[in-house]
Amino acid sequence: MIGSAKPLVAPLQPPSPTGRCLAPSSCAPDSPPALTRAVESPGQSQSQSQSDGAPPPRPVDAAALSHVLRASPQLSRWSRSRALRSGRRPGSDRAKLSSASASVLPVNKSPRPEDAAVAVEDGEDDDVCVAERDAAAGKAIYIVSDGTGWTAEHAVNAALGQFEHCFVDRGCAVNTHLISMVNSMDRLLEVIKQAAKEGALVLYTLADPSMAESAKKACDFWGVPFTDVLQPTVEAIASHIGVAPSGIPRSSPSRQGQLTEDYFRRIDAIDFTIKQDDGAQPQNLNRADIVLAGVSRTGKTPLSIYLAQKGYKVANVPIVMGVNLPKTLFEISQDKIFGLTINPVVHQAIRKTRAKALGFGDGYQSNYAEMEHVRQELVHANQIFAQNPMWPVIGVTGKAIEETAAVIVRIYHDRKQKCSMPRISKRY
Amino acid sequence: MIGSAKPLVAPLQPPSPTGRCLAPSSCAPDSPPALTRAVESPGQSQSQSQSDGAPPPRPVDAAALSHVLRASPQLSRWSRSRALRSGRRPGSDRAKLSSASASVLPVNKSPRPEDAAVAVEDGEDDDVCVAERDAAAGKAIYIVSDGTGWTAEHAVNAALGQFEHCFVDRGCAVNTHLISMVNSMDRLLEVIKQAAKEGALVLYTLADPSMAESAKKACDFWGVPFTDVLQPTVEAIASHIGVAPSGIPRSSPSRQGQLTEDYFRRIDAIDFTIKQDDGAQPQNLNRADIVLAGVSRTGKTPLSIYLAQKGYKVANVPIVMGVNLPKTLFEISQDKIFGLTINPVVHQAIRKTRAKALGFGDGYQSNYAEMEHVRQELVHANQIFAQNPMWPVIGVTGKAIEETAAVIVRIYHDRKQKCSMPRISKRY
Repeated sequence: MIGSAKPLVAPLQPPSPTGRCLAPSSCAPDSPPALTRAVESPGQSQSQSQSDGAPPPRPVDAAALSHVLRASPQLSRWSRSRALRSGRRPGSDRAKLSSASASVLPVNKSPRPEDAAVAVEDGEDDDVCVAERDAAAGKAIYIVSDGTGWTAEHAVNAALGQFEHCFVDRGCAVNTHLISMVNSMDRLLEVIKQAAKEGALVLYTLADPSMAESAKKACDFWGVPFTDVLQPTVEAIASHIGVAPSGIPRSSPSRQGQLTEDYFRRIDAIDFTIKQDDGAQPQNLNRADIVLAGVSRTGKTPLSIYLAQKGYKVANVPIVMGVNLPKTLFEISQDKIFGLTINPVVHQAIRKTRAKALGFGDGYQSNYAEMEHVRQELVHANQIFAQNPMWPVIGVTGKAIEETAAVIVRIYHDRKQKCSMPRISKRY
Repeated sequence: MIGSAKPLVAPLQPPSPTGRCLAPSSCAPDSPPALTRAVESPGQSQSQSQSDGAPPPRPVDAAALSHVLRASPQLSRWSRSRALRSGRRPGSDRAKLSSASASVLPVNKSPRPEDAAVAVEDGEDDDVCVAERDAAAGKAIYIVSDGTGWTAEHAVNAALGQFEHCFVDRGCAVNTHLISMVNSMDRLLEVIKQAAKEGALVLYTLADPSMAESAKKACDFWGVPFTDVLQPTVEAIASHIGVAPSGIPRSSPSRQGQLTEDYFRRIDAIDFTIKQDDGAQPQNLNRADIVLAGVSRTGKTPLSIYLAQKGYKVANVPIVMGVNLPKTLFEISQDKIFGLTINPVVHQAIRKTRAKALGFGDGYQSNYAEMEHVRQELVHANQIFAQNPMWPVIGVTGKAIEETAAVIVRIYHDRKQKCSMPRISKRY
């Protein structure tokens, strides 16, 4: 569900029956019970907001909010550290920054005049930084999480892939801002207020129902469009298994230190994979879950690492002309060996790109990317693949590491499970 | 939004005004226009289903579906390969498998009698595999994607974290099944039909609107609960930037080979990070974005790799008693160096676990995890940190790699951008 995107200025002066509203910071209508309780006692409001009969969003007590923002120990710590870094005297932050903001904020260039309006109108702007200045160049998206934010970032990146056609020709520009560990009410409100200033969309993952509820209310209050990224998935699982979600963020102390067997398996897989990189320690090939064989630049190493992150012990064996493959490669179970091949023309292009990226000189580059050598090496590799029909040969041309990994993992599990429908299964 | 979970048997015999419905496979009511068109021409139905005035879900032509399933080249290829692997003669698959299914499917043990009912009633079950047998032990969740499925898997794993309290005491058990590259209509219907058999929840990410629409219709038809994982996020972004999503899956040929600068940056970061692991090539420390310094087992290597996957060139430097730190460490920019520390008691526990996991002998283990040594090494490390106040020191005790990485990346970007609000910003 998407929050209503009201104009940005209006919500900062919410309709007040008493007409007491003079300026954002002094605008103080009655606080909604839910939010007040949430500020006082998350636990209490959590149980309260879990009942679906939640009251409709009502204006947040801006005075209370601004007080909360002042009181934020995190914020003041950041302000101090920023002041120290920038050589300013702590305490004189606000004045200098608000003046700075006036000069820095691109009032004329801004694609959203109301942003500038808010910035000028709001004397509390103390978030002048590269990110905010960049924000003027494109639409801002705040990714807000009570944890690391990696899940939300991953989901948002995938969603943004649906708008590549617009980014490529720069028809539109987007700036994402990942703000993680938002696990206090004051921090949450501070972030959403900043999102309002930048005219940002807020995409959040907040496990605590009282935090999620407050995010909705604050977004409505400040006219910030928002979406709870994981809510539909969590609700679907809850109704499927008939269990209510815990509402406890991963970062919560009560969930700290829960490093599972699976976690250590992944760590071991990474350690193993790094030690086995580029044909090292062929005597350990039998301990690998997956063995990759291919010529240089077929992405063996990053592919191995990516698979290791998923818990697979991977060894990769380079196929080089004039160098015999390790004897052990043919002694181990052959159905865990995968061949990697690539289109020579694209291969050469990638090699050139890589050589350039690595800053090699022309001499090296021309030698490194020498077409005939590439062709011969690939012919040599294909001969080996032909002699080992058990090895699935995967073309990596134009494929991202993630895509090649998906193919390999699917075949790996299919061979183990012998399903008609290839699937990667896990137990919880 | 969550699909309605109807009983599993009924939908296979949908209400038919003409009463022609004798058996699931012969039940042939009129096909809904949208789905028929989708099967014939995705492009056509895509434009059709993009108009929100979509018709309410109507029963799918089961006969047509089963025909489509027969005709699936992918399925027959998988069946052949499975047959070859299992040494069975291709062609005799179905008979053997259906008889096998009768013996293998835990009809009595199944916690969902209707599953067994469907399995027995449906003579077409040719998906007997470990995964399906495991499914009887817990609720099944199908993660269905038109691409690699990594995004959906990541989101579902995070969502499942909200039910840990239930998994820990085995109060409930869940089996996830990631089914990737579902990019044809027949494959999609095949997967959803299988989900119905296993009583699974279907969580999907399908970029093509006609595929997503068909998934909804098929899930409604077979009474499968479902949720579109990314839809709310994509819709929120679309309305925020005022651009319609392309509807093109990442796996589509038209999006193949779009390996961006960012992609090669990540590949370079991984290559660099692996070469720099465990203090190697100290002369390159200046080329690193982030340098990690800590004693053994503070997770330097997996942390480095995790950060590299995100595009940061990372070097890690082990702090070992009696070994001087490389001179270059103190010559490079100090604000990119991070210290890692850990609680010695937990540290020892982790070392023991790791030593065990690595299969070291008791002698090695007792030496490796010797408490006094650990304490001394940490004291030594803390002295170094005290001498280098510019290095943020991060305690990794009980933290997952992802969490420590989040802290480091946030500080890294905060130092670069000097925001009052730490944020990790990207441009698109």
